[in-house]
Amino acid sequence: MGATGPVHEALAALPLVDHHCHGIVTADLDRDGFESLLTEAEPWPGISSFDTPAGVAVRRHCAPLLDLPRHAPADAYLARRAELGRREVDRRLLTAAGTEVFCVDTGYTPQPLTTPRELAETADATAYEVVRLEAVAEAVAAQGVEPDAYATAFCTAAEEAVRRPGVVAVKSVAAYRTGFDLNPARPSDALVNAAARQWLENGGRLADPVLVRHLLWTAVDLGRPLQLHTGFGDTDIRLHRVDPTHLTDWLHLIKGTIPVLLLHCWPYQRQAAFLAAVFEEVYLDVGLTLHHVGPARSRAILAEALEITPFRKLLYSSDAYGLAEFYQLGALAFRRGLGELLQDRVDADELSLPDALRIAAWAAGDNARRLYGLPAPDPDPAHEPRPHRD
Amino acid sequence: MGATGPVHEALAALPLVDHHCHGIVTADLDRDGFESLLTEAEPWPGISSFDTPAGVAVRRHCAPLLDLPRHAPADAYLARRAELGRREVDRRLLTAAGTEVFCVDTGYTPQPLTTPRELAETADATAYEVVRLEAVAEAVAAQGVEPDAYATAFCTAAEEAVRRPGVVAVKSVAAYRTGFDLNPARPSDALVNAAARQWLENGGRLADPVLVRHLLWTAVDLGRPLQLHTGFGDTDIRLHRVDPTHLTDWLHLIKGTIPVLLLHCWPYQRQAAFLAAVFEEVYLDVGLTLHHVGPARSRAILAEALEITPFRKLLYSSDAYGLAEFYQLGALAFRRGLGELLQDRVDADELSLPDALRIAAWAAGDNARRLYGLPAPDPDPAHEPRPHRD
Amino acid sequence: MGATGPVHEALAALPLVDHHCHGIVTADLDRDGFESLLTEAEPWPGISSFDTPAGVAVRRHCAPLLDLPRHAPADAYLARRAELGRREVDRRLLTAAGTEVFCVDTGYTPQPLTTPRELAETADATAYEVVRLEAVAEAVAAQGVEPDAYATAFCTAAEEAVRRPGVVAVKSVAAYRTGFDLNPARPSDALVNAAARQWLENGGRLADPVLVRHLLWTAVDLGRPLQLHTGFGDTDIRLHRVDPTHLTDWLHLIKGTIPVLLLHCWPYQRQAAFLAAVFEEVYLDVGLTLHHVGPARSRAILAEALEITPFRKLLYSSDAYGLAEFYQLGALAFRRGLGELLQDRVDADELSLPDALRIAAWAAGDNARRLYGLPAPDPDPAHEPRPHRD
Repeated sequence: MGATGPVHEALAALPLVDHHCHGIVTADLDRDGFESLLTEAEPWPGISSFDTPAGVAVRRHCAPLLDLPRHAPADAYLARRAELGRREVDRRLLTAAGTEVFCVDTGYTPQPLTTPRELAETADATAYEVVRLEAVAEAVAAQGVEPDAYATAFCTAAEEAVRRPGVVAVKSVAAYRTGFDLNPARPSDALVNAAARQWLENGGRLADPVLVRHLLWTAVDLGRPLQLHTGFGDTDIRLHRVDPTHLTDWLHLIKGTIPVLLLHCWPYQRQAAFLAAVFEEVYLDVGLTLHHVGPARSRAILAEALEITPFRKLLYSSDAYGLAEFYQLGALAFRRGLGELLQDRVDADELSLPDALRIAAWAAGDNARRLYGLPAPDPDPAHEPRPHRD
Repeated sequence: MGATGPVHEALAALPLVDHHCHGIVTADLDRDGFESLLTEAEPWPGISSFDTPAGVAVRRHCAPLLDLPRHAPADAYLARRAELGRREVDRRLLTAAGTEVFCVDTGYTPQPLTTPRELAETADATAYEVVRLEAVAEAVAAQGVEPDAYATAFCTAAEEAVRRPGVVAVKSVAAYRTGFDLNPARPSDALVNAAARQWLENGGRLADPVLVRHLLWTAVDLGRPLQLHTGFGDTDIRLHRVDPTHLTDWLHLIKGTIPVLLLHCWPYQRQAAFLAAVFEEVYLDVGLTLHHVGPARSRAILAEALEITPFRKLLYSSDAYGLAEFYQLGALAFRRGLGELLQDRVDADELSLPDALRIAAWAAGDNARRLYGLPAPDPDPAHEPRPHRD
Repeated sequence: MGATGPVHEALAALPLVDHHCHGIVTADLDRDGFESLLTEAEPWPGISSFDTPAGVAVRRHCAPLLDLPRHAPADAYLARRAELGRREVDRRLLTAAGTEVFCVDTGYTPQPLTTPRELAETADATAYEVVRLEAVAEAVAAQGVEPDAYATAFCTAAEEAVRRPGVVAVKSVAAYRTGFDLNPARPSDALVNAAARQWLENGGRLADPVLVRHLLWTAVDLGRPLQLHTGFGDTDIRLHRVDPTHLTDWLHLIKGTIPVLLLHCWPYQRQAAFLAAVFEEVYLDVGLTLHHVGPARSRAILAEALEITPFRKLLYSSDAYGLAEFYQLGALAFRRGLGELLQDRVDADELSLPDALRIAAWAAGDNARRLYGLPAPDPDPAHEPRPHRD
């Protein structure tokens, strides 16, 4: 796991486009609060979430940024974190991430989180917004709507949402709601109205298969890149239903329309790579996974993801949520993993150095910039989309 | 594949808790008998089961324990095995395994096998028992029971079985009988009675989906840790139906009840790791796989299994059946694989040495001891559960 | 990724049996034509298919064979390719592959391709033929047949096809037509007749589940080895339906009949390995994948495929189609990947050198020769099957 050489140096210096993340929790965190955010699980009595690959990575790679020795004990880490205060910790970790652009999913807020603008300020970066379509639909329902008017009201609300300045994409968590074994066809108005009637009567979150299909087709109509949660998540995921290859029929139907960005993917990174290799509109990242496995395994996962993925199709995301640690760890695991992989190929003369540097720059940011129409690394504020920037 | 350093030394010295295995065949084995036990397949004319990764590992790692050179030919190995005699071979291989505790599934005996007590004697170890629930149910049926009385009779027999001294867990081979695409809900009495009627009329092994569900819910009622076969097995497995993530709905329903221990898992070790990472009650091992792939690949498989698995959730098992070789190979492959993985992380400064030693001790035995309520390495016979010990 | 040592040298010198490939496109290729054949996707405006692992491998490993520097730019590569002319390029690349025997699927010809004889001449090799059963069935339909006569006509045509000199196997692309979630039982005559009626009325390719089952059972009746596409392919594949373990029930039903050769397999190489480890009749290769991932990842994929696969069950294929580059890259990736894997095990004393050399020779050709009844490396023309040979 050597971490030297020109590809490493280039990747260490490249500003990243984190094309999918969330905000940081704005409350001060006690031990339970921190441990709960450190895992995709609920807290378990008797088992610390520091005793995980992610916990080990925090103690190894984040502790020094808080002036602690590498591998500092969890107690020392949390004490120092409290001592420095949330704002200083966030500033140090986000600055260390070296991320230039954050695309922030603003539709998942079980706890109060930083806004995209606050995130951008803390990191001295630029933030754009990703609209979570399920949140839009549920807000329409919460405001009260007649079942027959739901489809139009949702589409209108989604159109308004994506017209807001700084919005670059939409996102769906269909993976959590139904999985991907959906009828791929656009549902008829009658079907949507009947499903809306039932949902609006019964309440709860949007999880009806017809309404989820309608949501995905609405995304197509919106014409914006669509981020799709696939693979790894919390207990709410049925992992066997979120293998993205179940979307193949739908991908055929939407050919030539919007880019589809497969998020996370693990353990289906090879399946996602297959789709990215054969469907023009499909892109992928291995976000979320990177900080959970840490730098020790990020190269192995990236290597699987890149076995057949065209080099213009790999994106970077942290999928950080809640903890400033994850923005830094995600970035580090990505730089280290991709750096080791590419450097080894250069060292083995399987790849030329200029090619390796080009691939690194593409994955670190150029692919995302191209896809979302973001300005080049030195941004010109006269260009759309207008970011949230300090 | 360096095998030196303090983590290796620590793992080499740690007594193992083999939390799932079977007995050794008590018959003297001729070549066909040995080759047949060396593989999960039936014997094939013209293809020796020594020409497999497991066969290569036996010749490399077991031959020297029988005073043969490394990589001794199969014929020489079998001749020396016969010359030494079964008891001496078993003693040498089991002693070399360095296993301190065996938890023995006593419910699978297509051939006469050593009892847990005999296994313990041979290895100078302690043995506990794991009750295979399908065997209990089938014994109830074999003894004759009215269909409407089956459910109660099975539950009573299972309760009696787990009250026997030395019993630490129950096991189900639902994977072999139906796979995991089961209705997760507890079946009604009426459903169970109707299914029991049909089964008792038709005979055969327990493979009715309602009765398998009933068996799994009975395990919940018993309150003991439940070992579940998942993944790799013989031709009787439909591998695509034993991905453990198909159990997700059932795991939600049983939250807060019993520990569920996913056995083997390969090739679904990442899926199993996902469940172990998000469900408090889920643990996993990669037994059976370890001796079939051998030390050359055990590290790769453990690395996948540990990508996100909390370090308190990994267990060791050999799942050895029939051949004394497998207890030794399983132990060796586990020590070597985990040792390489952890040592490399220490060498790369991704993990501190004390953390690596702690994780090694947890996986080698402490996690299983905690889970099954086993005594600490120097056992105090005043404590329950009472083992079969020489 | 060291590529030295006696196993490497042996593998570099071994003539390969490429047990599944297609012909080379006989048209002169412009940039679009070449790029289109370089990927399993359709061409994408703005993204070059050279920016893939396969493209990188072509520039690294094929360019020097055309007298260009390693990593030559795509433009230079294509210019030199045009300058040398198709025949000279094909000759250089095929000769460099070191393949002694090609088994050529002659039933997929969307573009004019070299015949097996032409391929053999170009490579100074021997070619045999593989009969694609879907093509036979579709030719029967195209010639006009009464629905009730379809089954017999197809069987007769298939029998005639496999009696042609040089035919060594049949192949099915059931994976592309229905996937493997088929009723495994042999369909009744009435079912086949009804399905044939519908197909012959509606036209199109053979994709009816009953007719696909009938085709697979016809393959059993033919008594020849059956090659089955599994896993990776183009957008026409539904990857989640082509995991070969879905064939388990069918494999049980056909026990003791024909060899079943799982082609490609990726990303299901472990699932395929399971079947090869437990079913006597099952063999596998990782063709197609090898040239798409290139030498940089071929070892990783072979390592997974070989975790439990008996060493007599691994075959080599390129699955090259269209481009001469793929015959060479497939062969190189196979030699390098298997060489690294085996050499490392020898270096770690996990495998003896004689065993490694034996395994290499088996996988490179002996397994295929045994399976297809091909003559030994120095062929004796008096033996059947009669090859297409220059």
